[in-house]
Amino acid sequence: MLKVSLLGAGRIGWVHAKAISSYAGSELVAVSDHFPENAEKLAAEFNCAARTTDDIIADPAIDAVLIATSTDTHSDLMEKATQAGKAVLCEKPVDLSLERARACQKVVAKTGKPVMIGFNRRFDPSFNALKKALDAGEIGKAELLSITSFDPAPPPVSYVKVSGGLFRDMMIHDFDMSQFILGVTPVNITAVGSSIVDPEIGAAGDVDTAVVTMTYADGRIAVIKNSRRAAYGYDQRIEVLASDGMLQAKNLLENLVVKSTSSGVTEAKPTLFFLERYMSAYTAEWDSFVTAVTKGTKMPVTLEEGVNALAMAEAATLSAKEGKPVRIEDV
Amino acid sequence: MLKVSLLGAGRIGWVHAKAISSYAGSELVAVSDHFPENAEKLAAEFNCAARTTDDIIADPAIDAVLIATSTDTHSDLMEKATQAGKAVLCEKPVDLSLERARACQKVVAKTGKPVMIGFNRRFDPSFNALKKALDAGEIGKAELLSITSFDPAPPPVSYVKVSGGLFRDMMIHDFDMSQFILGVTPVNITAVGSSIVDPEIGAAGDVDTAVVTMTYADGRIAVIKNSRRAAYGYDQRIEVLASDGMLQAKNLLENLVVKSTSSGVTEAKPTLFFLERYMSAYTAEWDSFVTAVTKGTKMPVTLEEGVNALAMAEAATLSAKEGKPVRIEDV
Amino acid sequence: MLKVSLLGAGRIGWVHAKAISSYAGSELVAVSDHFPENAEKLAAEFNCAARTTDDIIADPAIDAVLIATSTDTHSDLMEKATQAGKAVLCEKPVDLSLERARACQKVVAKTGKPVMIGFNRRFDPSFNALKKALDAGEIGKAELLSITSFDPAPPPVSYVKVSGGLFRDMMIHDFDMSQFILGVTPVNITAVGSSIVDPEIGAAGDVDTAVVTMTYADGRIAVIKNSRRAAYGYDQRIEVLASDGMLQAKNLLENLVVKSTSSGVTEAKPTLFFLERYMSAYTAEWDSFVTAVTKGTKMPVTLEEGVNALAMAEAATLSAKEGKPVRIEDV
Amino acid sequence: MLKVSLLGAGRIGWVHAKAISSYAGSELVAVSDHFPENAEKLAAEFNCAARTTDDIIADPAIDAVLIATSTDTHSDLMEKATQAGKAVLCEKPVDLSLERARACQKVVAKTGKPVMIGFNRRFDPSFNALKKALDAGEIGKAELLSITSFDPAPPPVSYVKVSGGLFRDMMIHDFDMSQFILGVTPVNITAVGSSIVDPEIGAAGDVDTAVVTMTYADGRIAVIKNSRRAAYGYDQRIEVLASDGMLQAKNLLENLVVKSTSSGVTEAKPTLFFLERYMSAYTAEWDSFVTAVTKGTKMPVTLEEGVNALAMAEAATLSAKEGKPVRIEDV
Repeated sequence: MLKVSLLGAGRIGWVHAKAISSYAGSELVAVSDHFPENAEKLAAEFNCAARTTDDIIADPAIDAVLIATSTDTHSDLMEKATQAGKAVLCEKPVDLSLERARACQKVVAKTGKPVMIGFNRRFDPSFNALKKALDAGEIGKAELLSITSFDPAPPPVSYVKVSGGLFRDMMIHDFDMSQFILGVTPVNITAVGSSIVDPEIGAAGDVDTAVVTMTYADGRIAVIKNSRRAAYGYDQRIEVLASDGMLQAKNLLENLVVKSTSSGVTEAKPTLFFLERYMSAYTAEWDSFVTAVTKGTKMPVTLEEGVNALAMAEAATLSAKEGKPVRIEDV
Repeated sequence: MLKVSLLGAGRIGWVHAKAISSYAGSELVAVSDHFPENAEKLAAEFNCAARTTDDIIADPAIDAVLIATSTDTHSDLMEKATQAGKAVLCEKPVDLSLERARACQKVVAKTGKPVMIGFNRRFDPSFNALKKALDAGEIGKAELLSITSFDPAPPPVSYVKVSGGLFRDMMIHDFDMSQFILGVTPVNITAVGSSIVDPEIGAAGDVDTAVVTMTYADGRIAVIKNSRRAAYGYDQRIEVLASDGMLQAKNLLENLVVKSTSSGVTEAKPTLFFLERYMSAYTAEWDSFVTAVTKGTKMPVTLEEGVNALAMAEAATLSAKEGKPVRIEDV
Repeated sequence: MLKVSLLGAGRIGWVHAKAISSYAGSELVAVSDHFPENAEKLAAEFNCAARTTDDIIADPAIDAVLIATSTDTHSDLMEKATQAGKAVLCEKPVDLSLERARACQKVVAKTGKPVMIGFNRRFDPSFNALKKALDAGEIGKAELLSITSFDPAPPPVSYVKVSGGLFRDMMIHDFDMSQFILGVTPVNITAVGSSIVDPEIGAAGDVDTAVVTMTYADGRIAVIKNSRRAAYGYDQRIEVLASDGMLQAKNLLENLVVKSTSSGVTEAKPTLFFLERYMSAYTAEWDSFVTAVTKGTKMPVTLEEGVNALAMAEAATLSAKEGKPVRIEDV
Repeated sequence: MLKVSLLGAGRIGWVHAKAISSYAGSELVAVSDHFPENAEKLAAEFNCAARTTDDIIADPAIDAVLIATSTDTHSDLMEKATQAGKAVLCEKPVDLSLERARACQKVVAKTGKPVMIGFNRRFDPSFNALKKALDAGEIGKAELLSITSFDPAPPPVSYVKVSGGLFRDMMIHDFDMSQFILGVTPVNITAVGSSIVDPEIGAAGDVDTAVVTMTYADGRIAVIKNSRRAAYGYDQRIEVLASDGMLQAKNLLENLVVKSTSSGVTEAKPTLFFLERYMSAYTAEWDSFVTAVTKGTKMPVTLEEGVNALAMAEAATLSAKEGKPVRIEDV
């Protein structure tokens, strides 16, 4: 039974608390938060202790920590927790600063402790099935990858300002998905973006609609499309063209009902947002973390991959700003 | 070049005139109609002669006639035309009277001339592909056939009164489809019906919504659903469950556009009615008739099959009226 | 917190144990089984007591029992449990004997205790959404209901022999669904069946493929298709034609991946069987039961409805045997 | 009755000959070809005269010419034909040289004669329906356009060498589609490409897989994906994200049959290639040309738009070669 503490009792912390506590092989023993009352509320619900972060990290009885705090604390906490001998599952992104993330990577490497980055979408049953079919050679060799990832509605501008920007905050998931599907990182990245959904987002120095094109050493190409708004719900699709065919992962719809009237043939909308779409992915993510920690096998998503995704986000941010392609090795 | 005359210049006559005249191996030379002005109008459009039916049948230069007159004249005209040595393509149904149809069948048989009944749906590309996949054993041995056939809107009650009733007028197509798909006729037929769409249809002694169940000597079962109204368009689907899987033929939609909004994910409606849905079937039907006549091969839809379909309709009509199953051999 | 005991620790008992124990408002306190070792195994897994059925029923501290024993014990247990003052959720079918079920219904009525029958499919999110859309008038007034319900593979013949036959064992779900969707029971039932999937099933006196047609007082018609085999998985579809359109509930597929190759465009199969398809329905069923017991509101599926479904099954069994329609009021 | 001559009796010439000759308002009176025997063959089939191009252009009795010759002759022939007073429908692309195309545009403008460029896809019923729904405001204001356009198999390398390259030869259709859908031309174009399908294509200086990103003055973004190979058939899709939703045009499949087996649920492949997919578009294109010529209304696709599409192709070719974005005003 893995004894786990949760750092951060915000929205995503609650999602993880539920996964940890309902999993047979793990026990949620403690939680901390910047605001102690948040930790206490979650502790009451999940029947665990509310403690300070330092206290948790210092406690040798705790095997693993799940870091769900604000992004600017991720690197510090990963370093401290691994130095204290704990296994870590850290929410994405690794950091907003690529430099800091790389420094963290080195510190963690010295501890030899396992760290996994929480790219939950890898554990979505359909994206997983797509990946397996591709790796099994069912459509031959991949040539062109397309990822469509639209949020239902833009976040508040106040959030946008501290988010690190669309490429680091939102497209980071898709950068990781690209390396998950294709197995490598790109050579060149070209990004374009605009704030056509909400000019306020543009005024805050960010974009809300963006397309990134990535090229690979062997000639493969990937394209990622992001929008902060899709009136019909959370749009999460992947498409891979390969030498012998194509694989697509479609959206999960709210239900399976089809209505035919004089207005047309109507299916349900895609599920509203990430909790509805990816709940089973969070469960599977936690299962894969505990299994890897317990068996001592390779982390399903490594810190290195987390840093790579951040490097892609950095390159895309730079490309969009300067209006020219950026080589990944230059960031 | 097959020289063809058309008997009947109504709506369906025009459909056939177009198929005949645009087909490379046939020439529309004449047309007749109960109302000579109808024949003249069609003749002007298709650049052929307007003549009387007797005149056409007596003309040795005419190789084939297409009978698209009112149903009560079909048997007489098939007899006369074959006795005059012509090949015949006759619109469905063979007759409203099963007795008369059987008598006609005998007369025609004596002439040795080829007669095809115009069950156009057999030539629909999708129904045809389904039949080929079934015959090729792609899903094993058929066990349960389902046919859904809904018209967009009920006909006028005045038409209903002279139509012979839903089973002879509308479901006749589905009875033929059942023998096309399964290759045999059923042993028992049970029909239920009601006039829930339009009570006036019930007052006229007919039904507008009906379900027919048919059982076969080897244990197979078929079910046909008909409705005179589908608010979303012409609904024409076939589904066969077999030992190794299932084949379905879906509806043809008006176009391929999908609209996603906060109201759902909407495709186009099915095409409006039979002209839109089955235009390519009429062309293929004519091609198969001319080819069979020219090569002297078996008619793609025989008069015997036309009589069989009528027998099923007769049995269904009787079953619905008496509220009990009817053996096909008893009609 | 509702204190619940489970009677029956077979496969479906485990499904319910999981639902009961993971639900916030209920606690699984005890379990019994005809074979005590089964009860002990489940008790160990779910951290509750293994006791005898009599002991459980006699315990005033237990608020509710979930009956998941063999069908022939349902009536006895419902009577005893309600007489002991407990709320009951009893698995379908109520009984194999319609007479016994009706007697049970009277006994239970006298106790005034709430009994719900476990027709889990009513709680499927898609069937539920279909029902809500129909009741909201989104497609007008229902005219023709079609239910397709195919199991992936036939059960062992040994099971078939004690099952009560396809209509009571398998189609009972669809009979209930028909009254759930349409809100009433039919007037006439006509059933045909054959043992085309497995002749051994026929030798055992049962059918494996069946079509039932039901007519209602106001002219509506329903048709149910059952097969014990669908090579492609569990096929569970509903379709309602109404005055202004049609509603359909499609199959749940194993995942959302589409593969396009030179062989065609392939989606995943429907989920394998009822556990995969209806797991969320079992959870929702339990929630609705606890809520109704706690609030003292009407049971979501009444014992009367369970008896009605059995009466339909009885009529269908009789109709298939005698080859003629059966009036529901005659069984 | 518009008297029409066809210049060019190759594959696409035959497609147009069929459209011209089966259209009620036009008559195919003559055909020419670089190889006179080709013209004679087509003339025999369509019952018209085989003549020389000069002869046709000099003939005042000819109202319009359809130019379906090799691309390098388009500009010359458009100039000569319009100077001779004829209306012109010219196949795409206008020219391989943007400079020559612009010069031609000026010459033609002076004649005042109507010239239409044969971007047939605009007349596809589904793309047309998508455009109409967008213009009607059904999904609000467009923000992000995606065009997927994959050929089933690469052309011979010999063809690639004289084609002008993928951007001018193949993506030219998609460049036109982007201006058709969005109504304007982009400001910036970024292209990446590789020869991952066939290295021989790379050796010939071209690419076979490419992604182009275009940005517009008002912040809209468009992305076009091209591949010379799709093992599953001709893949032609359009997707527009807008403020209130999304419109997609799906692929046309070979038929409407769905097969469910233990391997999955399989639909038919997309139609093989452009003749199958766009036959109805060629017919509609011709209708719109004749109608505009006859009524003296604006050409449905102008020469200016043809030149614009070529400018986009030029910019994309340059961008892919130089590895940086290109401003459309700089080509």
